[in-house]
Amino acid sequence: MAETRIDHQQLRNLASELLMAAGTDVSEATVIADNLVWADLMGRFTQGVWRLTVLLPRLRSGLIHSPCLPKFIQKADGVMIVDGNNGFGHYIGHVAMTKAIELAQCHGTGLAAVRNSNHFGAGAYYVELAAQAGMLGFAFTNATRRVAAYGGLSPLFGTNPVCFGAPLQNGESVLIDFSTGAMAGSVIRKATETGEPIPEGVAIDEYGNPITTPQQAQGSTLLPFGGARGYCLSLLVEILTGVLTNSLMSFQIPTMHEKEQIASQIGHFFFVIDITRLLPLEEYYQRIKMLIIEVKKSKLQTGVTEILIPGETRWRNYADQLREGIRLDWKTAESLKSIANELKVATPW
Amino acid sequence: MAETRIDHQQLRNLASELLMAAGTDVSEATVIADNLVWADLMGRFTQGVWRLTVLLPRLRSGLIHSPCLPKFIQKADGVMIVDGNNGFGHYIGHVAMTKAIELAQCHGTGLAAVRNSNHFGAGAYYVELAAQAGMLGFAFTNATRRVAAYGGLSPLFGTNPVCFGAPLQNGESVLIDFSTGAMAGSVIRKATETGEPIPEGVAIDEYGNPITTPQQAQGSTLLPFGGARGYCLSLLVEILTGVLTNSLMSFQIPTMHEKEQIASQIGHFFFVIDITRLLPLEEYYQRIKMLIIEVKKSKLQTGVTEILIPGETRWRNYADQLREGIRLDWKTAESLKSIANELKVATPW
Repeated sequence: MAETRIDHQQLRNLASELLMAAGTDVSEATVIADNLVWADLMGRFTQGVWRLTVLLPRLRSGLIHSPCLPKFIQKADGVMIVDGNNGFGHYIGHVAMTKAIELAQCHGTGLAAVRNSNHFGAGAYYVELAAQAGMLGFAFTNATRRVAAYGGLSPLFGTNPVCFGAPLQNGESVLIDFSTGAMAGSVIRKATETGEPIPEGVAIDEYGNPITTPQQAQGSTLLPFGGARGYCLSLLVEILTGVLTNSLMSFQIPTMHEKEQIASQIGHFFFVIDITRLLPLEEYYQRIKMLIIEVKKSKLQTGVTEILIPGETRWRNYADQLREGIRLDWKTAESLKSIANELKVATPW
Repeated sequence: MAETRIDHQQLRNLASELLMAAGTDVSEATVIADNLVWADLMGRFTQGVWRLTVLLPRLRSGLIHSPCLPKFIQKADGVMIVDGNNGFGHYIGHVAMTKAIELAQCHGTGLAAVRNSNHFGAGAYYVELAAQAGMLGFAFTNATRRVAAYGGLSPLFGTNPVCFGAPLQNGESVLIDFSTGAMAGSVIRKATETGEPIPEGVAIDEYGNPITTPQQAQGSTLLPFGGARGYCLSLLVEILTGVLTNSLMSFQIPTMHEKEQIASQIGHFFFVIDITRLLPLEEYYQRIKMLIIEVKKSKLQTGVTEILIPGETRWRNYADQLREGIRLDWKTAESLKSIANELKVATPW
């Protein structure tokens, strides 16, 4: 059996129980579980419950604090610094984006600059929170150094994603969430399991030679996507999340392989625009629909069957898995079962 | 003589006089001239005084209004709509970014959403205004449809650039300004003069076949840069500048080739963050310097002599041309002379 289908509510409960059994604060556990299971529902399995196999050991070793009791420092009407006190990135990201949405409700725009956080999972989750509130959301984060500058060999930037969400009238949203490295680190990690080759132009060895096997790619240096322009975006994200937040910058964040393990002290940056300050929501929905219809009726290149709107495939996964259960691969199911046994938590499989 | 060197002040005066002689309002003319000559100084000649050969006929035919008397509609503490009344994009962009900076000074962040504008030239000019004020600046614009969706054949988006500026202590700035199309429309137009071939992956014909000669590329459909991710950015910029501003969207903006000429009604989006609300400027300068030093000391790929910071080459051009004069190519010099003769304005050459 390559995979099994698990009801999303059952999986959310399990994730929450595992987190709590491992020592996570109750109110944080439910938020983190919701985040992980949402990523699974959207088909973004590399950011889903599988992550517990990495997160729980980090919690146990003291690299992630819980409860983290984040500190909120209001700096202007619509501007806030959130000090995450090295808690779960998934939790800190949630409270920071929630604050940014509240600020936007009051002041038209809301900005939350976050320091001392950890890996926050799928950036799309946060911008979807904004979209649910009828707003435009942006989310950025830095991460352990993996990506070289354009023309360089040294890993300097995290995969520093760019995330953007815009609501649609049907309850879904335009969801943009991409790594500014040529490939997301989590996708490479997944490829080591499937053995799929890595295309050229993604990863290089210390001399700049292309790496094409996922085993070698693991831990290697990634190139920026799209050449100089991807590098510009990596740098932009680093300025917002590293320089501005007073967190560590990507090149300072310890890698998993380093002996001396310190808290990641990752920085995030959330920004929200209340659409209704610019035009009535109804009119916005009509206008974005008009844009999407125009994109959808584009003539197609040979071999292409349809133009996808960013997030569209994710929402199809969501609808399918909400109904039919989440496709949990056996390896993740076994890993979670083994953690559950250790923590004396029952699994539904 | 392939090119001549013209003092920047002389060129600025000439541009200003030509604009006024053609009927541009005095206060607008000096702002527009400064913008065009700044682009020349930075070596961005495709957005420099050469543009007068396109702008002045559009002014004369009534497609650009001057004086445009933009309307400012405050929508929240830090949020403003600017209706450009179809004036010069260079002027409207300047007043809108100036307003966004003022808003950020008062409220920590400033957002100016602009409708009914025209082509605004080099986006870097606006984010540099923010950087000069010690702030982070973002600028976006839509434009006549040129760029296909990922997988599509129809031109839908303008080259919808992403622009970002961050100040440095030495008075320069990190300047990011790139087209989300595979190549800037202005670069292709320039290539038709030099005859340089267009690389594959930039432009396609109506069946999706690659176009590689600049003559054919002129007016053809461009691909997004970096595949699906470039398309995501094109769409993001369109949502900010087209959907949100209530301006025309790129696919609705008339091309130069269409018979029925209406005002472009282009949308822009400016956003500014006052750095000092997040950390003292002195500390920011130290942190961004630390980042740049780390990038600069990266190991290099074979054949690469140095890692450039975005904007660095531009600032070298600026320093050189400020001192030695602007390198005006003979074709531009002749075109301007012919316009000047017609308008009875003296040229310095």
